[in-house]
Amino acid sequence: MPNLTIEQLQQRIRDFASARDWDQFHSPKNLSMALIAEAAELIEHFQWLTQEQSRALPEDKLAEVSLELADIFIYLLRLSDKLGVDLMEVAARKIELNAEKYPADNVRGSAKKYTEY
Amino acid sequence: MPNLTIEQLQQRIRDFASARDWDQFHSPKNLSMALIAEAAELIEHFQWLTQEQSRALPEDKLAEVSLELADIFIYLLRLSDKLGVDLMEVAARKIELNAEKYPADNVRGSAKKYTEY
Amino acid sequence: MPNLTIEQLQQRIRDFASARDWDQFHSPKNLSMALIAEAAELIEHFQWLTQEQSRALPEDKLAEVSLELADIFIYLLRLSDKLGVDLMEVAARKIELNAEKYPADNVRGSAKKYTEY
Amino acid sequence: MPNLTIEQLQQRIRDFASARDWDQFHSPKNLSMALIAEAAELIEHFQWLTQEQSRALPEDKLAEVSLELADIFIYLLRLSDKLGVDLMEVAARKIELNAEKYPADNVRGSAKKYTEY
Repeated sequence: MPNLTIEQLQQRIRDFASARDWDQFHSPKNLSMALIAEAAELIEHFQWLTQEQSRALPEDKLAEVSLELADIFIYLLRLSDKLGVDLMEVAARKIELNAEKYPADNVRGSAKKYTEY
Repeated sequence: MPNLTIEQLQQRIRDFASARDWDQFHSPKNLSMALIAEAAELIEHFQWLTQEQSRALPEDKLAEVSLELADIFIYLLRLSDKLGVDLMEVAARKIELNAEKYPADNVRGSAKKYTEY
Repeated sequence: MPNLTIEQLQQRIRDFASARDWDQFHSPKNLSMALIAEAAELIEHFQWLTQEQSRALPEDKLAEVSLELADIFIYLLRLSDKLGVDLMEVAARKIELNAEKYPADNVRGSAKKYTEY
Repeated sequence: MPNLTIEQLQQRIRDFASARDWDQFHSPKNLSMALIAEAAELIEHFQWLTQEQSRALPEDKLAEVSLELADIFIYLLRLSDKLGVDLMEVAARKIELNAEKYPADNVRGSAKKYTEY
């Protein structure tokens, strides 16, 4: 089965919420809370691991982590949809902005925040 | 300009990190932290707003929120890339799983967690 | 039973971790992750509620929320202990700093961030 | 100056919010968002550090981290106050519950979640 597009995924999520009459709960404020709660479930998988362990997850753990990534993505798509934001367009634009904020020659090998430069 | 694909976005982020020698910092553990930090910047935009206000953001606020969504998406793409997870595939699959967990007829109009059913 | 002091609570948490040989996992980095994961469990209780509902929790929900507050506090105490930070002292000091940052006459009735003043 | 008590800190925070007419914003829902936003500022300090680096913060970094801990504590105190929860009592009780959930002999040296036992 070929992958869906972003728009098709958003349509499915829209239908899903609509069939359950959940639109009433899906204010951007509430969705931002649901999104961070999913981001925290990801954190839970990694909190006691070393960085090395996090780079080499066993198969079953990776499957669980994948589903957490999906949950985050679903809420991100839903929130973007509700706000009328084109996620792909704004991500491409933000990568350009980041390239200006963090010139490669200035920050190579350093993780200092850009404000410190 | 037509939108990039997910894979093209991931390639740009890969190049971005590589040009700055930031791969060393981008363990899945660290990226999960960066992701939740971005999710929290989204929260900050909404924390003192009513739900109604969050549904009707002024133009300048919406522009800021869009960039936060982009930041979350960028780290989500990066983390998926590092873990070898196909974000689009797993999201489509998770929506199916959710449909089974929350049958529309059982949960209509209720936001109780599925474990309570 | 009279309440314990902050120091007594920290000693209990120290003994608890030590008896389980968990000190090895309790780096400040890891503890910051555990703390935010607990903060997210709190978020989950509130994410679909209106503000009004969050002000009038039923008894059983309030009991659950109380335990989440406890979990956040436990990790906050543990992290402060590990870093040698006097939580009570720094909180009192921060309240003073906030009073300077947000002069009452300037910000009354507004939740704008102080940087906007 | 001797440290304040928890109750005295809560009174100061109450006065602070009241002088600024901020009670209207301080629903438990909103405060849970503010709390996790502060927890994320803590995360930002640690996200690119190794565990070892997080155990040996330079003086200026430690001072910044201390203020983040204070911010988390202030919102935790405020939320407890709003919900009528005795934070010290519930923390002591939760430590007892944790001791039952994670018997030392079963979990020594392991960070697996208790549900896996």
